[in-house]
Amino acid sequence: MSGFRPEAADLRAADLHASVSDPVLDTMNFLNEVTHRYPEAISFAPGRPYDGFFETADIFSHLRRYLDHLEAGGASPAQVRSALFQYGPTSGQIRELIVDSLRKDEGIHVPPESVVVTVGCQEAMFLAVRALLTGPEDVLLVSSPCYVGITGVAALLDVELSPVEEGEKGFRCSDLEAAILRERARGRRPRAFYVTPDHSNPSGSTIPLETRRELLLLAARHDILILEDSPYRLVSPGTQLPTLKSLDTERRVVHLGSLSKTLFPGARVGYAVADQQVVDSKGRSGLLAAELTKIKSMVTVNTSSISQAVVAGMLLSADGRASELNRETAAYYGDAMSATLAGLAEAFPEDDRAALGVRWNEPSGGFFLALTVPFPADNAALERSAEEYGVIWTPMSYFYPHGGGERVIRLSVSYLTHKEIKDGIDKLARFIRDEAARP
Amino acid sequence: MSGFRPEAADLRAADLHASVSDPVLDTMNFLNEVTHRYPEAISFAPGRPYDGFFETADIFSHLRRYLDHLEAGGASPAQVRSALFQYGPTSGQIRELIVDSLRKDEGIHVPPESVVVTVGCQEAMFLAVRALLTGPEDVLLVSSPCYVGITGVAALLDVELSPVEEGEKGFRCSDLEAAILRERARGRRPRAFYVTPDHSNPSGSTIPLETRRELLLLAARHDILILEDSPYRLVSPGTQLPTLKSLDTERRVVHLGSLSKTLFPGARVGYAVADQQVVDSKGRSGLLAAELTKIKSMVTVNTSSISQAVVAGMLLSADGRASELNRETAAYYGDAMSATLAGLAEAFPEDDRAALGVRWNEPSGGFFLALTVPFPADNAALERSAEEYGVIWTPMSYFYPHGGGERVIRLSVSYLTHKEIKDGIDKLARFIRDEAARP
Repeated sequence: MSGFRPEAADLRAADLHASVSDPVLDTMNFLNEVTHRYPEAISFAPGRPYDGFFETADIFSHLRRYLDHLEAGGASPAQVRSALFQYGPTSGQIRELIVDSLRKDEGIHVPPESVVVTVGCQEAMFLAVRALLTGPEDVLLVSSPCYVGITGVAALLDVELSPVEEGEKGFRCSDLEAAILRERARGRRPRAFYVTPDHSNPSGSTIPLETRRELLLLAARHDILILEDSPYRLVSPGTQLPTLKSLDTERRVVHLGSLSKTLFPGARVGYAVADQQVVDSKGRSGLLAAELTKIKSMVTVNTSSISQAVVAGMLLSADGRASELNRETAAYYGDAMSATLAGLAEAFPEDDRAALGVRWNEPSGGFFLALTVPFPADNAALERSAEEYGVIWTPMSYFYPHGGGERVIRLSVSYLTHKEIKDGIDKLARFIRDEAARP
Repeated sequence: MSGFRPEAADLRAADLHASVSDPVLDTMNFLNEVTHRYPEAISFAPGRPYDGFFETADIFSHLRRYLDHLEAGGASPAQVRSALFQYGPTSGQIRELIVDSLRKDEGIHVPPESVVVTVGCQEAMFLAVRALLTGPEDVLLVSSPCYVGITGVAALLDVELSPVEEGEKGFRCSDLEAAILRERARGRRPRAFYVTPDHSNPSGSTIPLETRRELLLLAARHDILILEDSPYRLVSPGTQLPTLKSLDTERRVVHLGSLSKTLFPGARVGYAVADQQVVDSKGRSGLLAAELTKIKSMVTVNTSSISQAVVAGMLLSADGRASELNRETAAYYGDAMSATLAGLAEAFPEDDRAALGVRWNEPSGGFFLALTVPFPADNAALERSAEEYGVIWTPMSYFYPHGGGERVIRLSVSYLTHKEIKDGIDKLARFIRDEAARP
C-alpha cells in the first residue's frame, strides 16, 4: 500500500493490470488535455459525426414507429411491453431488420442467426478477438496505422498484434502475406486480419476492388479470417466498392458493424456478422455468432432494448435503407473533405509542396486524411500548434501499434463547418511553414 | 479445418477459446432446453423481474422528463440533442443522479467522480475484476453458491475463483479468513471478495449486521477489497440492513450497482462505485473509477445515452428515490415469497419434514430460496420433474464453482402469480415425495 491516503485502501499501480496503462490511452489523454487547455483552437482531432441533422423529437417518433411495427407484426401489448422493459435475447432483438438493411445497402446476404447485436462496434471487436485468439501463440494481424479500438481490445485481452504497414498507396496483399509467413516462421499462429477497407480511420485509404478479391484469396490460401470494420461507407459520397463480406464466398470474413456514423453514436448499437461454422468439443456444429453470443452473456448480457428500438424505428423510417437516411450527411462530409483538400492545395501550391516536404492523400470519402509534414508531428509539436497557432490535430503515430507515422498528421473533417475548415487550414499552414523553418 | 462444410472456413472447437465452453453456460443451456421442451410446466427457474407494473407509455414520459431536466439545468436545444445523439462521456452522463439516489436510498455518500455508469451490473463486474485481478497468482474469493455473472466474468478473463462456502446459516467470516490464509499458503494473492449481502442469488441468504461490520474489519486486516453486488434490496419488503458500502469507512468496498430490478432490465444500466485511491506508475493519484473508465473505453466506449436518459427520467419522477418507485413491487415480491413459504409449510408439515429430509430457508426478501431435498437435484431429476410433474426449478449445484449443493434446489418466486405458485408447490411436493421414495 502506498500510503497516499492513510485511511484508504490505496492501490499501487503495480496492483492494477499493467495494460490498463495502455500507451494509446496515454497519448489520447494528452490530446484531450490539449483540447481542454485550448478551447478556442480549431480542432481537426475529433472523429465524431456532425450532429446538426439530428432532431431531438425524432427519438420519440422512431421509438413509436418500432412499437407500431411490433404491433403490426402481431405482438400483444404485453409482448410489446416485455420487448422494451425485460431482459432481451443476448443475440439481439432487431436482427431481422439489420439483416434486411445489410441486404439492401451492402450486398450482404446472411440469415439473422449469423448476427449478434452488440453495444457498439467496440463490443463486436471485443467478442470476435476474444473468440478467435485463443492461445499464447496466436497473433492478430492489423492493417497499420489502425483504429485505436482494436488496439484497445488487444491490450485488454493480452493479444499480440502484428502490424501490416500501409504503403504510400495503401494496403498491399504482398505485405500481408510476408507478415503471415514471418509470424509462422517465429512459431506464431496468425489467426485473423483486422482491416477497414473503406476510407480508413486514421489514414483515409480505401482498398481497390482487385485487391479486395486478392485479399479474400489470400485469406483462404493461408487459412486466416478477416475482421472487416467499415463504418464510413454510407456516410461517404458516391458509389462505394463492395464490402469484403459481400464478396466472401468462403465465409472468411467476420463483418463488424457500426451504426454510430450511419444512424447515431448515442444509441451504442453495433453488430457482428459471423456466419462461420464452428464445431464444438462434443462434435456439435453451430455458428460463430452463437459463440460470440455466449461471450456477450458474460460482458453485457444483452444490448439495451430501448436503444435497439430507436435504431430499429430509424431503419424502418427508410424501409431499412440506412443509405437513404444518409444522403444529406454523405454530401455534407463529402463537401467538408473537398473543402479541406482545396484548402490544402491553396495553402501549399503544387510547385512549393515538394520543396517543403508536405504531401497528403485524397480520400474519396470518410472523415480522415493523412498529411505528411517535414518535422516530427509529436506531442510537443501538437502543443505548440495549439498554443501558438490555435489549431489542433492528431499525431498519426498514435495509430501505429509498433511505431511509425512520426511525420504524419491525421486531419478529421467531420465535425467542422466550412468556415472553421478554412480558418483551420490557414492556421495549420502557418504552423507547418514555421515549424519546417525551425532551426 | 474440420471439413464439416467443405466450402466454409470451419473452425474446430479447439480453435475457439476453451473457456467459451464455460460449464455454467452448458448447464444453463440444459435448463433452457428443458424449459423450451416443456412450455406448459410451471417454472420456478427464471430470476427475471415481474413486469406487470410497467407501462409502455412510461418510456416516453421518462425520456421527456429527463430532457426537461436538462433544459431546466440550462442546456440549450443543441446541447440536449448532443446529450442524446452523440458519443457521451465514457464514465456516464447521469452520475449526479445516481449519486443522489445512492445517498437518499442506500446511505452511500460518494462524489460523482467515483461512479462509472455501465451496461448493466455485468459490465461493472467485468471492469472491476479486470482492473483488480492482475497476475497469475491473483485469486477472487466468492461467497458460494454465487451468481453466475461473476463466474462468467472469471471464466472470460481466466481469473481463478476461490469459493467460500456458505454454512446452513449463511456466510461466516471465519470461513473467509480461512480461505484467505489457505490461498496465501499456496502462494496465491487473494485480491477481493465478491458477495451479495442481501437476499442472495441463488440462496436467498442475508448477512447479519454484526457480520457486515466484522467482514469490513477482516477486509482491512487482510488487505483485500470487497465487491458488493446487491440488486434485491429495494425490491424487498421492510427495512433493509445497511449496505456494506455505507458502513465502509476505509474504502474497502467497490459497490456494483444494478438498476435491472429496481427500475427495469431492458435499459441495461448499472454502475460501479469505486472511490478507492490508486497511484499510477508515474506517481499520479486518481480514483479506481477512472481506471474502470479506461477499461470501459475498450469494451463498450460508453453506455447508451437513450438508456441513461430513460433511467434518469424514471429516477427524477420519484425525486431520486428508487425505493419510492418500488413500494408496490417490493410488496408484490414479499407476498410471492410468503405464499411460497406458506405453500411449502403446508405441503411438508413440520413433523413430516425431518423424516423426509426436506428443509428450506426463509429469506426476508429477494427472488430466491434454497430447498434441500433427499436426493440428487441434478439434470436427470430436473428432466423427470418437468416431464412427469410439470414443474421446473434450478439445480443449486449450477451455482457452485467447485462443486456443492448437489441436493439443493433454487426456487425463484419473482415471475409467477400466486395461483402458479400454489399449483407449482403442489406439483413440486409430489415430485419430491415420489423421488424420495424411488428405490
